[in-house]
Amino acid sequence: MKRIDGGVTAAKGFFAANAAAGIKYQGRDDMALVYSEVPCVAAGTFTTNVVKASPVVWDMNLLKKGNKIQAVVLNSGIANACTGTVGDEMNDIMATSMAEALNANVANADLTKEMVFTASTGVIGMQLPKEPLVKGCGMLSKALGDSREAANKAARAIMTTDTVPKEACVSFEIDGKTVYIGGMAKGSGMIHPNMATMLSVVTTDVAIAAPLLQKAVSEVVADTFNMISVDRDTSTNDSFMVLANGLCGNQEITEENDNYQLFKEALYEVSKTLAKNMAKDGEGAEKLFETVVMGAKTKEKAKILAKSVITSNLVKTAIYGSDANWGRILCALGYAGVDFDPENVDLYITDGKQKMLLFTKGMATDYSEEEATRILSAKEVTAICDMHEGNESATAWGCDLTHEYVTINGDYRS
Amino acid sequence: MKRIDGGVTAAKGFFAANAAAGIKYQGRDDMALVYSEVPCVAAGTFTTNVVKASPVVWDMNLLKKGNKIQAVVLNSGIANACTGTVGDEMNDIMATSMAEALNANVANADLTKEMVFTASTGVIGMQLPKEPLVKGCGMLSKALGDSREAANKAARAIMTTDTVPKEACVSFEIDGKTVYIGGMAKGSGMIHPNMATMLSVVTTDVAIAAPLLQKAVSEVVADTFNMISVDRDTSTNDSFMVLANGLCGNQEITEENDNYQLFKEALYEVSKTLAKNMAKDGEGAEKLFETVVMGAKTKEKAKILAKSVITSNLVKTAIYGSDANWGRILCALGYAGVDFDPENVDLYITDGKQKMLLFTKGMATDYSEEEATRILSAKEVTAICDMHEGNESATAWGCDLTHEYVTINGDYRS
Repeated sequence: MKRIDGGVTAAKGFFAANAAAGIKYQGRDDMALVYSEVPCVAAGTFTTNVVKASPVVWDMNLLKKGNKIQAVVLNSGIANACTGTVGDEMNDIMATSMAEALNANVANADLTKEMVFTASTGVIGMQLPKEPLVKGCGMLSKALGDSREAANKAARAIMTTDTVPKEACVSFEIDGKTVYIGGMAKGSGMIHPNMATMLSVVTTDVAIAAPLLQKAVSEVVADTFNMISVDRDTSTNDSFMVLANGLCGNQEITEENDNYQLFKEALYEVSKTLAKNMAKDGEGAEKLFETVVMGAKTKEKAKILAKSVITSNLVKTAIYGSDANWGRILCALGYAGVDFDPENVDLYITDGKQKMLLFTKGMATDYSEEEATRILSAKEVTAICDMHEGNESATAWGCDLTHEYVTINGDYRS
Repeated sequence: MKRIDGGVTAAKGFFAANAAAGIKYQGRDDMALVYSEVPCVAAGTFTTNVVKASPVVWDMNLLKKGNKIQAVVLNSGIANACTGTVGDEMNDIMATSMAEALNANVANADLTKEMVFTASTGVIGMQLPKEPLVKGCGMLSKALGDSREAANKAARAIMTTDTVPKEACVSFEIDGKTVYIGGMAKGSGMIHPNMATMLSVVTTDVAIAAPLLQKAVSEVVADTFNMISVDRDTSTNDSFMVLANGLCGNQEITEENDNYQLFKEALYEVSKTLAKNMAKDGEGAEKLFETVVMGAKTKEKAKILAKSVITSNLVKTAIYGSDANWGRILCALGYAGVDFDPENVDLYITDGKQKMLLFTKGMATDYSEEEATRILSAKEVTAICDMHEGNESATAWGCDLTHEYVTINGDYRS
């Protein structure tokens, strides 16, 4: 597997577009489109929040029907959540307008609205404005390109409080054919995915049967997007959508063979990169904070423990202050809801270069506070908790809790 | 029932003391003692954190043995958690020194160490220094008083990042006798009690059988201390301890009769006041933020929903910014883990004077943002969520998430 510079247009037959439709923001792009020249097998995972945005309900329904998908239209600025029947109508207009515009402006396009995934992100409760939305779909249909730049501009168009676009891409070989998987994601606040993340679209030219694609997606999401958190708030709009158009020419993957494993590993790599970058770009964040729990009895327990540490406000503020307040990490392990013996836990911190043992045999080691602060001053910091109870491990990714987080969210809507 | 100005010395036969022992802080009180002239029936609830501080393990063990308790010795500055066997020894020294000092300096005192509850609060992982601890116990035993001032000074001595002491007191009549219940509490950060709160001691002169006292305590804690949160971090030291010495002269309460109900209501009043004041004095908090969930199917569901709202970082920052970002409240209800129909929810905000409907029938009302901001600018703000699914309700108390919270916790240990 090779990591390459690329996004949603890397895989064969995929195009992207961006547009400044004036949905809510003025003077910046706020709509994006991902389009495949042929219909795709699709899979996805969506928010488990009881309050689901209109586009989430729409997409889940299309997947349930087993529809082939050919386009994903996205907007930033307004989430189209908690918007009642009016919101559902606006979402329908979004899918319909996109299909019609593509059919009018793209050669050989023949889409129904039920071949279009929709996704929205932004303020909850506001209604999407109809005219900019319809106009935006028209603009998108005329702006499609398959260049590296087209993918990057689409990734930028879906940003809200994000400070950087998130893209990832890998390639690998199946049956002597080169397969590409490329994706984009957005997310910075209200990030505590529980099925998927805020918004992410991944495209691939592999040929794969729909049930296997969904299986790979679900398994990979559990170890990547579901293992990050910025603020422990599971959004109403979380959507992770994967489109596979089969254009790379491999023999369709129809069973869990070596090719399936290869594909899943590559999908994991792309998903992990996107998820980590989302945590690193958490609202107000200055640092990526990773927690590895090893030596756990079960993988599920390792996951619960790791997530408890990266979601603790007290741990997150200590990381912000580069303060080796390891007691807060022990405390967060302790209230995670998993039984363990604190006397068995070894706790380390590392910046990737130096690794330091802070706590063992129930007590603090004689570590140097100065050295610990130096390690924690890095831009990417990892806590390693060895439970010494088994052989399972898990990794979770979060960020520090900063003054800027409070500034951003004390006044987000204005 | 009458609310009165008072604390742990209000009930007959209870004394309190404070001392500047130099445990960690210099130049301020950091130890406190609550003492009853006769042994007491005791009850308590303690943290459910797997990582339990030495004093918590000690107290739970005394309660399990059914010991009568005559004194509670407390220190602030060092939590004596994650301190291994050395920590257990220091806790033993604390109980032993306190019993010995009381026996030496107080007329008729005859305590064993197993009649002394201990409690510690402060930094996790540091060891208690032996000499100041022993010296402090001596000072406390010579400083006992039953005045209003003595109670207040004890309440101040256990503060860490608290900005105000928390005390509450009520009186009521049983069998023609006046019963007093008075308490103190501390807590400002690492507050997400799950059995009890950081530290709280309540004294009463009622005569009551131990199992009934424990029953009342457990039930009251579930609706008061367990319904507050500052930062969703359940501490290693949470301890709520109630001592009943029977000196008011009522016939001992031995069954769940009217007198038991009277006592429980009074205990609820004291506990609720202490708990609310703790939320209001959350680290960096500028506002008390209350959430009432009504019309829920079950009380348990109402509690889960209410706590989900008050613990959301995004809701808390919006409250800080006096921003009526009600979508975040709906979102927090949605990910609470309880099923409901968002279309049925009515959402109001109130400052106790004006009540405003923000969301109904699945959509925002046409409310005035200006008016909403005015309501949310109050020092005590309430969100009311009517689920329209049943008749159960619950209230939870939290606070806003401010820049000052990040400042305090980015650099707590230094």
